[in-house]
Amino acid sequence: MKNYLKYDQWKIWEDRFHAEYNEVTESIMSLGNGKFGIRGNFEEKFTGHTLQGSYVAGVWFPDKTRVGWWKNGYPDYFAKVINSVNWIGVDVEVDGAVVNLAEAHILEFHREINLETGTLMRYCTLELAGGKQIRIHTQRFCSISNDRIGQVDFEVQALNFSGKLALVSYLDGDVRNKDSNHDERFWLETGKKTAGDSAALQVRTKPNPFGVPQFDVAVAMQNQVSLLRSSADGSTVHPARITPAEILKEKYTGLKYEKEVAPGEGLSLRKTVCILNSNDYTTGELLAAAQKQVEEAAQNHHLLHEHRNAWKKAWENCDIVIEGDVSAQIGIRFNIFHLLQTYNGTDSRLNIGPKGFTGEKYGGVTYWDTEAYCIPFYLASSDFSVARNLLVYRYNHLPKAIENAKKLGFKDGAALYPMVTMNGEECHNEWEITFEEIHRNGAIAYAIYDYINYTGDEAYLAEYGLEVLIGIARFWAQRVNWSADKQKYVMLGVTGPNEYENNVNNNWYTNYIAVWTLKYTLEAFGKVNNLSAILEKTGFRQEEETARWKDIIEKMYFPADAARNVFLQQDGFLDKELIPVDQLAERPINQKWSWDRILRSCFIKQADVLQGLYFFEDDFDEDTHRRNFDFYEPMTVHESSLSPCVHSILACKLGKTEKAYEMYLRTSRLDLDDYNNDTEDGLHITSMAGTWLSVIKGFAGIRIKNTELEIHPHLPAQWKSLTFRMGTKSGLKEIYIDHEGHRVREI
Amino acid sequence: MKNYLKYDQWKIWEDRFHAEYNEVTESIMSLGNGKFGIRGNFEEKFTGHTLQGSYVAGVWFPDKTRVGWWKNGYPDYFAKVINSVNWIGVDVEVDGAVVNLAEAHILEFHREINLETGTLMRYCTLELAGGKQIRIHTQRFCSISNDRIGQVDFEVQALNFSGKLALVSYLDGDVRNKDSNHDERFWLETGKKTAGDSAALQVRTKPNPFGVPQFDVAVAMQNQVSLLRSSADGSTVHPARITPAEILKEKYTGLKYEKEVAPGEGLSLRKTVCILNSNDYTTGELLAAAQKQVEEAAQNHHLLHEHRNAWKKAWENCDIVIEGDVSAQIGIRFNIFHLLQTYNGTDSRLNIGPKGFTGEKYGGVTYWDTEAYCIPFYLASSDFSVARNLLVYRYNHLPKAIENAKKLGFKDGAALYPMVTMNGEECHNEWEITFEEIHRNGAIAYAIYDYINYTGDEAYLAEYGLEVLIGIARFWAQRVNWSADKQKYVMLGVTGPNEYENNVNNNWYTNYIAVWTLKYTLEAFGKVNNLSAILEKTGFRQEEETARWKDIIEKMYFPADAARNVFLQQDGFLDKELIPVDQLAERPINQKWSWDRILRSCFIKQADVLQGLYFFEDDFDEDTHRRNFDFYEPMTVHESSLSPCVHSILACKLGKTEKAYEMYLRTSRLDLDDYNNDTEDGLHITSMAGTWLSVIKGFAGIRIKNTELEIHPHLPAQWKSLTFRMGTKSGLKEIYIDHEGHRVREI
Repeated sequence: MKNYLKYDQWKIWEDRFHAEYNEVTESIMSLGNGKFGIRGNFEEKFTGHTLQGSYVAGVWFPDKTRVGWWKNGYPDYFAKVINSVNWIGVDVEVDGAVVNLAEAHILEFHREINLETGTLMRYCTLELAGGKQIRIHTQRFCSISNDRIGQVDFEVQALNFSGKLALVSYLDGDVRNKDSNHDERFWLETGKKTAGDSAALQVRTKPNPFGVPQFDVAVAMQNQVSLLRSSADGSTVHPARITPAEILKEKYTGLKYEKEVAPGEGLSLRKTVCILNSNDYTTGELLAAAQKQVEEAAQNHHLLHEHRNAWKKAWENCDIVIEGDVSAQIGIRFNIFHLLQTYNGTDSRLNIGPKGFTGEKYGGVTYWDTEAYCIPFYLASSDFSVARNLLVYRYNHLPKAIENAKKLGFKDGAALYPMVTMNGEECHNEWEITFEEIHRNGAIAYAIYDYINYTGDEAYLAEYGLEVLIGIARFWAQRVNWSADKQKYVMLGVTGPNEYENNVNNNWYTNYIAVWTLKYTLEAFGKVNNLSAILEKTGFRQEEETARWKDIIEKMYFPADAARNVFLQQDGFLDKELIPVDQLAERPINQKWSWDRILRSCFIKQADVLQGLYFFEDDFDEDTHRRNFDFYEPMTVHESSLSPCVHSILACKLGKTEKAYEMYLRTSRLDLDDYNNDTEDGLHITSMAGTWLSVIKGFAGIRIKNTELEIHPHLPAQWKSLTFRMGTKSGLKEIYIDHEGHRVREI
Repeated sequence: MKNYLKYDQWKIWEDRFHAEYNEVTESIMSLGNGKFGIRGNFEEKFTGHTLQGSYVAGVWFPDKTRVGWWKNGYPDYFAKVINSVNWIGVDVEVDGAVVNLAEAHILEFHREINLETGTLMRYCTLELAGGKQIRIHTQRFCSISNDRIGQVDFEVQALNFSGKLALVSYLDGDVRNKDSNHDERFWLETGKKTAGDSAALQVRTKPNPFGVPQFDVAVAMQNQVSLLRSSADGSTVHPARITPAEILKEKYTGLKYEKEVAPGEGLSLRKTVCILNSNDYTTGELLAAAQKQVEEAAQNHHLLHEHRNAWKKAWENCDIVIEGDVSAQIGIRFNIFHLLQTYNGTDSRLNIGPKGFTGEKYGGVTYWDTEAYCIPFYLASSDFSVARNLLVYRYNHLPKAIENAKKLGFKDGAALYPMVTMNGEECHNEWEITFEEIHRNGAIAYAIYDYINYTGDEAYLAEYGLEVLIGIARFWAQRVNWSADKQKYVMLGVTGPNEYENNVNNNWYTNYIAVWTLKYTLEAFGKVNNLSAILEKTGFRQEEETARWKDIIEKMYFPADAARNVFLQQDGFLDKELIPVDQLAERPINQKWSWDRILRSCFIKQADVLQGLYFFEDDFDEDTHRRNFDFYEPMTVHESSLSPCVHSILACKLGKTEKAYEMYLRTSRLDLDDYNNDTEDGLHITSMAGTWLSVIKGFAGIRIKNTELEIHPHLPAQWKSLTFRMGTKSGLKEIYIDHEGHRVREI
């Protein structure tokens, strides 16, 4: 836990520079607008610890797979959203020497992200070699009202000297990736233009042998430079006509503005950029389109105002107000802020990477996190089309999911959705995950149910949903086999949500969601008016296939402990030494123990049986919930960021509000407190949705059942009240909960 | 199956050049002497398909581990016996142009390895650009009478032209490794000397961050060049005084001999080399010692004669004569030849890599193959000290095996021998193997039993054996856990010999060998006269530890199928679909199926339960053998080269001689026929010991019980007779078997 950041209800800041935590701060102070994003990197030169990260949604590179020992079926590449053109860069030169923040003596420093307005601000006073002092003030944002546009205001002032001051405003595509399998650079330059105060750069991802299209990104910038003068009365800005000098390098274009200044004088730069890519434009159009759009944006004096207004509107419906607990308040707002920055639901080709636009880890690819954790957030907080687009994303990948299953030996239209993907192709390369963590397929089916249950949009089944359900159901029907010994269907060789078990037989959760998929798909047949067309399209052999499905539904095996009357995580679980986590001397075990020791222990990384109880809560009575929770919770180490939220929700349901609050604290401020010492790699975006869930489904006790709202709140003692809005089929509602009760107001 | 090679009872040859199979031929025609070895590479320049390989025993490099996803406990490096100085190299120049065998037009070609004499011979007639024809004749050997020395005779003759002919005899340390994790070259030059017709080169492995010492190799060569004249009466050799020109490059030294020749004239070069390394000499001594020894060797006109005599002597006691089946005859001799070339037992720091000196794959490191397959061969065919040295190798690694176990969470002197190693440190990096294929530990204990049973050398226990047994027994005692559910001890999360199952519970074979180790160790306590010293040295808490061991012996769980009355390979095996291999449409499954499909199938890569019956045959009656064989054999795909031999031996025992012969054919000519399409990577040296076992323990039905020989032969119908010698405690014996019966003759 690092408590170096300060906060109030809307802002997070550091008031001196913590160079040692700079990468953490960069993650926390990331900005994005669903279309692109950038870490909280400095504009000016900085050679200290930093992870440079500028990402464009849907622009990625297929990085050749690297493994120690190849297993049949491994994919050829790992798709990675890659570090793209650095568009915030502004070098400062004082008398010809470039200012390096890492080498300057910092007299004053303040960096602050404002969640209410979506802006990042910084000022600092530096003493350079020879005692020259300068002051820098910057502010930037990624516009959410025009998601192609970003803007940086950058001011620098000579405090105690006369001399030459210069700003070099640049676009740099010669960037590295931290996470590159073969230490490559991924970009080639394909175009460059300069005209007056504007310049533009176009880069393309390198060719690859995997048949993946190359992506182009064009960034255009428009610079507006003024002369700054400060006096006792404050600063004033004066128009300045400084003709910039061009600086051209490979994959780099810069404009240098230089001026002799006296003490108190400086330069003020407004750098507006437009970022476009070849998902939306032809390669040939890109550069000109970016130049045109940046020119318009630079002339729009309301750009920031529009951006702030858009955030204001977003907060109106998405905010959660927690009275009586500032730490919890900023925690949940921080999470909502980043969720909204990551995905805006306008483009069904995009999805939510585990780190969003805040880091490279996990490559920005799509996991089952989207279906299991994120969709409920977007359902409640955004237009239903946003969640629907997340479903359509998977529908569009159905042919590749069928191809993926075929590679693994399945047939007849069985679909296995990948563990991680960008374009529908599997990218993961650990056999125990890639081939065996197949419960993900169930989550994709479940999300269809979840969406329709929430929105009532049954038409989705006919248009897209049923085809996906059939593909997944077929996979399950082929993946099980008949055990002559048990006289039951079994599912061998899987990895459940608890990844601290690999290659187990009859994972209860996986078996359960498989049978559930078969049932739900059979039900769905009755809910579409174009059934025969779908059956024909999918080549469904109705009699034969449904007969098998029904047989599996009837005769599936579920491991259980008769003595304790609990479901068993998998076959053989009771052979383990069952030890509660609080007797563990060493933690976290994923750092202290070798992998085999973790595997044969009873310790659970994240909710597994309990994930099933959470998804299918109405299938089980409260005693069943309680027995299983009491059995599994003490053995759960929560070494996945996605774990505590599910436990927190179940604990609320069981009236264990204190336990729920303890779990909630582990997730809500995970990144703000750098709880797992990994925030420097980026934020845990998808687990932020889990935190949101633990407030809404946990403490607020919200359920949507067939589009209808139900509320059974369990407010933590530490909170005075909880207020939030939710979109439902019957309209927007505001819910207020305190220890007296709750109120629902139609908006 | 490639049938391009010809053979008789002692020789294997190709009579035209098969460029497409050159790497296969290179493997098959490898030479070695236990101290160094070289693949059947060409002496002269060849830019076609080739795997250059020259290896020095005990000289290796710690290659930084490369994995896709790191697991706690993985080792930092993989030890690899690396491609070392090319000492056979002789470039041929005709009128200044280097002859490249890959570009020449080959008019005649013959390459032949003679197993009786341990020599590799080749002649070829080439037409070069402009119609110039030359004839090359070479012969080489790695001396087994002086294992530091190698010699190449190289002749080249101008057939139809007059011109300048030159030979460049060189030593080249600027070599690559095919199997390098990070595409590095591993050698630095540290010394070089030239004097007249001799030159020497010393190289050192690059520094590494793992604390592994760097190795030095020095190679000295002495060249003797003569003028060759051929006439109708044959060739004559004339002394020639050609002063060589020095060619010096980084990590390379060459001597160039040039001469104007007329048609029929040529040059004859005898190149004698001495190869020494820093395991035997100090770095400073190396170069001079190599120069001195090569000078002596070059003056020894009996060098080849002594080498051939040494082979003659080796064959006297090691040969197996199969009457009536030339293919089987050359097959078994080929295997014995390579086993003897790989390891000679004089140095307990050395062991047997899976590919010997014939390739890079598996890095030349030590597997459990040595204990499970190779030791019986060396026991029967060599002085007992050879097998003993293989045991002492593991004794010397005991402290590192204890350290290795400690890394994985074990304590109090528990020892886990590595899956693969060079110096005792674990090098493997697949969690399911490295951490879980722990039955290897049992094989190391078993080898001690095997050795003492064969030789009667019980003193080995007191000197070395018991300490190793205690370490391994302690590991088993900690690795099992009490299952409250089963009221038995269980062993969770292992991989058995059948690597087509990973992370299973209660692998029968592993559980069995664990309990066997505990029993045997307890017995061994009674067989040493220095027990108290050993107990003190190992800190053995006699009462407590033996009580636990006895409890485990009594209460260990063994999975079984009561209905079929067979042992079960592991828990849950009966949940699989049990399908015989002959119903499999696609084979081999390790190429056709994804890994998960292999894992959940019933198909068995190599003997697992049956390995246990093989090791501990006297613990079970014949019906038990039969039931288990009949259950498991039909599901075994034998996709490991180590599998068929065990099945062959068991089939013999059960009187299924035809089945045994079928199995035998799969192993005996594995490399000669390139059965698995991988001979190009090197020969399957350790599985050659398995082939030997299937003849001796299978068809000949030899058992040694408490040093006494027993014979129950099952000669295949295809063979007329079988003759071989075996060393036993009571002396050397010759065994003759035919279909009438068998005779044992004392030698």
